[in-house]
Parts: sequence; C-alpha cells; structure tokens
Amino acid sequence: MNTDRNAPIGVFDSGVGGLTVVREIMRNLPHERIVYFGDTARVPYGSKSKSTVLRYSRQIVRFLETQNVKAIVAACNTASALALDTIEKEVQLPILGVVKPGATVAVHTTRNKRVGVIATESTIHSHLYRTLIQAEDPEITVFGKACPLFVPLVEEGWTKDSITREVAGRYLGELLEKDIDTLIMGCTHYPLLRSLLREIVGEKVTLVNPAYETAQALKRMLSDMNLENQAPGGEPYRFYTSDAAEKFDAFAASILPCRVPAAEQIPIEEY
Amino acid sequence: MNTDRNAPIGVFDSGVGGLTVVREIMRNLPHERIVYFGDTARVPYGSKSKSTVLRYSRQIVRFLETQNVKAIVAACNTASALALDTIEKEVQLPILGVVKPGATVAVHTTRNKRVGVIATESTIHSHLYRTLIQAEDPEITVFGKACPLFVPLVEEGWTKDSITREVAGRYLGELLEKDIDTLIMGCTHYPLLRSLLREIVGEKVTLVNPAYETAQALKRMLSDMNLENQAPGGEPYRFYTSDAAEKFDAFAASILPCRVPAAEQIPIEEY
Repeated sequence: MNTDRNAPIGVFDSGVGGLTVVREIMRNLPHERIVYFGDTARVPYGSKSKSTVLRYSRQIVRFLETQNVKAIVAACNTASALALDTIEKEVQLPILGVVKPGATVAVHTTRNKRVGVIATESTIHSHLYRTLIQAEDPEITVFGKACPLFVPLVEEGWTKDSITREVAGRYLGELLEKDIDTLIMGCTHYPLLRSLLREIVGEKVTLVNPAYETAQALKRMLSDMNLENQAPGGEPYRFYTSDAAEKFDAFAASILPCRVPAAEQIPIEEY
Repeated sequence: MNTDRNAPIGVFDSGVGGLTVVREIMRNLPHERIVYFGDTARVPYGSKSKSTVLRYSRQIVRFLETQNVKAIVAACNTASALALDTIEKEVQLPILGVVKPGATVAVHTTRNKRVGVIATESTIHSHLYRTLIQAEDPEITVFGKACPLFVPLVEEGWTKDSITREVAGRYLGELLEKDIDTLIMGCTHYPLLRSLLREIVGEKVTLVNPAYETAQALKRMLSDMNLENQAPGGEPYRFYTSDAAEKFDAFAASILPCRVPAAEQIPIEEY
C-alpha cells in the first residue's frame, strides 16, 4: 500500500489509446497527478495471447510501483481483460481496469437486455465483458464483435472517412441485426470514432465509453479509500514509453485537453 | 562462420509476413533446410523506431545462431531497412535482407527511371530503397508511400475485398500520378495483395516482389560460397515464434506450399 494521498495515479496502456482514459481522468479528477506508461515498443496487445499480455502487464506494473503510485489504472481493455484478474492478486495497490466500469454501466443502460461489445480480438475471445455483465444480470445477452481494423484506421487519422464508415458498417451490421440497444466501445481507440459509430448505430443505441466510466469509478474508489489528492500542483503529469517518443508526443498533443511534458523512453523489459 | 553445408538457413520476420519469403525459398531452393523465427509477441515492426527494431533483430539473430544456421535471411523489410547495416558488421554468418535484392531488380526493370515503393512507415522513412537504387543508378527517381493499413487488411483476410481496393486506390493514386513504371512491394505481406494491386496499377507497371528476388539472391550466395545443401532430407523445416503459436500455424498452413510442423514458442527477450 501507498497511503500518500498526494502520490500519482499510475495509468498504463499498450500504446497511445490509453490517453483517452487519461483525458477523462484529467477532466473528471483535475487534482490528481498521473504517471502514464505506453508500451509503444510492443503495441498492439489486442491480437496477442493471454500469457504474453500478462507478462508485459506485470513488467509495467513493476515499473509503476517504482514511481510510487498510490493506485493503478489498466487503461487498456485487452490488458484489463487478460491480465488484471491475476495481477490484482499480486500487487498491494488498488488496481482498476476499464472493463468492469464499462460492463456495469451497460447493465444499467440496457432496456431490452441486449448489449453489443466491440473490441480487439483478444478482448472478445476472453468473454470478460459477457462474464461481468451476466454476473450482474444473467438475463442480458451479450454480442461481441472483434474489430481489428479500427485501431489502424484511427492511427491513420481516418476517423471521419468514408472507408472507415464502410468498415464500421460491415463490423456493426451483425450486431445491429441482433437488435442491441447498448454498445460498449471496448477498446481505448474506439471513442475517437464516436461520431462515426453514432451515425451507423443511430440514436436508439446508447454508446458506452469505458474511459469515462473508469474515471468515475476511480473517483469513487479514491474517495472511499481516502486517497484523494489534497495538495494539487507541482508537476502533475509524467509520460513514459517503451519506444521512441516523438509519435507518442504528437498523439498526446492532439487528444489531451492540456499541454503535457514530452514522454521519456524506458527499457520496460528490465522491470 | 558455419561451414556445414547441410546446416539450415535462418529466416526471421516480425511475425507471419516472412512466410512469403519462406515460400519462395521452399520453391526455389527445395533442398535447403530452414529455421524460421516470427516475432509474434512484438509484431509489428513497421511503426517502430530504428533502435527498437535493431534491439529485437539482434536478439533474434542470437537465437538463430544457437540453431547453428549457416546463413541468415532477414525476411522483414523493416528489419532489413533499419537493422541490417549494423548487424552484418556484428555477426560472422552471411546475412541477406530483402531490400537489396528488390532494389537491384527494380533498377534493371524500370525503363523510364521512375520507381515506386510501397512499404511500412519505418521502411519508407529509412529511405533505404531509394539509397540503394540511386547507388546503382543516380538517374532513377524513387517515390515512397507508407501503406499502414495493408498489413491489417491482409490479416483480416480481406485480400480481394472492395474496401481493400478502395484503400489501395487511395495509397497508390499519388504514385501513379508520378508516372512510375515499376512498383516494389516493400513489405512481406503485400505480395498477398498482388492481384488487387495489379488491377489498380494496370499492366504497364511491373510489380517487384522482393521475396522472390531474395530467394534468387540466396541461391547465388550459397552457390558462390559453396554452401548448398548436399544431403537434403531429415526434418527440413522448423518454426519458432515469441507468442502463442496457434494463429501462426493457421497462417503458415494457408500460404506455404507444403505441410510443416507446428511452431514452438520461445522467450526471445532472453537472447
């Protein structure tokens, strides 16, 4: 445990996608300090196996522990789905993933008890969204769809593009046929496609953004544990990556609501 | 040096793409044994920095050395472009990349001295195709275009799809405007898009497949060095990966001309 209320929150992701979670934490918990790690040398996680994602996540958690964080947020759906159940038994710090907050909100959102989940291949195959949703309400049917092209399309910058719309139409078509009324955007990049996804699913389907829900869950957790920062200020945000940081910095500048310092590259395999 | 003529060739790639090179070696050098390593736990390389790709490639070369190979083929354009110049000074074995054979053929193919290269972002930014082509003929103009969506589209299986055709039309449009008469498919996945690329560029543009040219260059090199296998037979092909091997095996089965044994996962960071 780290009972220093003014210590930072550790946030990690396979790359840049977790910055959408950082953005929500910045907006909703403006007094909290953040240490972010993006595993840009080994990104993506979404097509990799459970044992590999677990090994990588453990190294990152060990690194964040050296930064004296008071809590950890796995801002990556794949890491949350494949590694968190094991890691939370191994570390002394409170640790939060993005899957559970997203699942809980979907349970409370759906009226017709038909929920869709779009995510990476590994997240879908883990069935964790389904498991958590049905643990809260066994009557809900969950339909998963892996969307492996969404991340590269976002990283290409084609977030409002006709090609992306066509890809999304194909991926979402089978979910819409199932008459879902709630759709979880179960990968950190997907909220960047929100307006395009909205066009395709129409107004009747509620889009759930686990990044926002995770920031809310983090707020409740810090409050419950008396861990809210009491002395904001100083150097609030630090960023680390495993590969060269230039592209990371450009992406961070494009999506974060404030200017942040340049990221520093660290040798993550050594942790 | 390893002067055992009957030793295997070591072939490596960031993942499954290098199997297109293996396929050409199998077809064109049927007596040679092959040890293949695919870095599926850290794939892709094409968006990563030179120092990271060099570190990964060094680990793989060390692993292949433990397999007593007689020569090494970097079957990955990105590794060939970013790491090979350094590694060939460090190892005692003959080592061949895919970039130089592809560049040489393009020099001899172009009539109007205007060559296009499509490849990953890192390969394009290295400018190695341009450097090698202009070293042979300074009058040739080389136009590069990074095509980051091609690999995920191939891995999605959409090799003959209307969406892929639209993406390819957009990527290749600017090269075609430059009046190229030769196009190098500078990433190991791209030959799997050959028929679709052919539709877009038309019959007047020659498509260069570095995988085929590399197999030819390997054949010449082994002959020049008296390293051709004299005792074919036994267990000719072995495959290793850094992540779980199931998906690798399925891809291998789909593109190789013969049945091969299942891949074995090894901890590449330890080399």
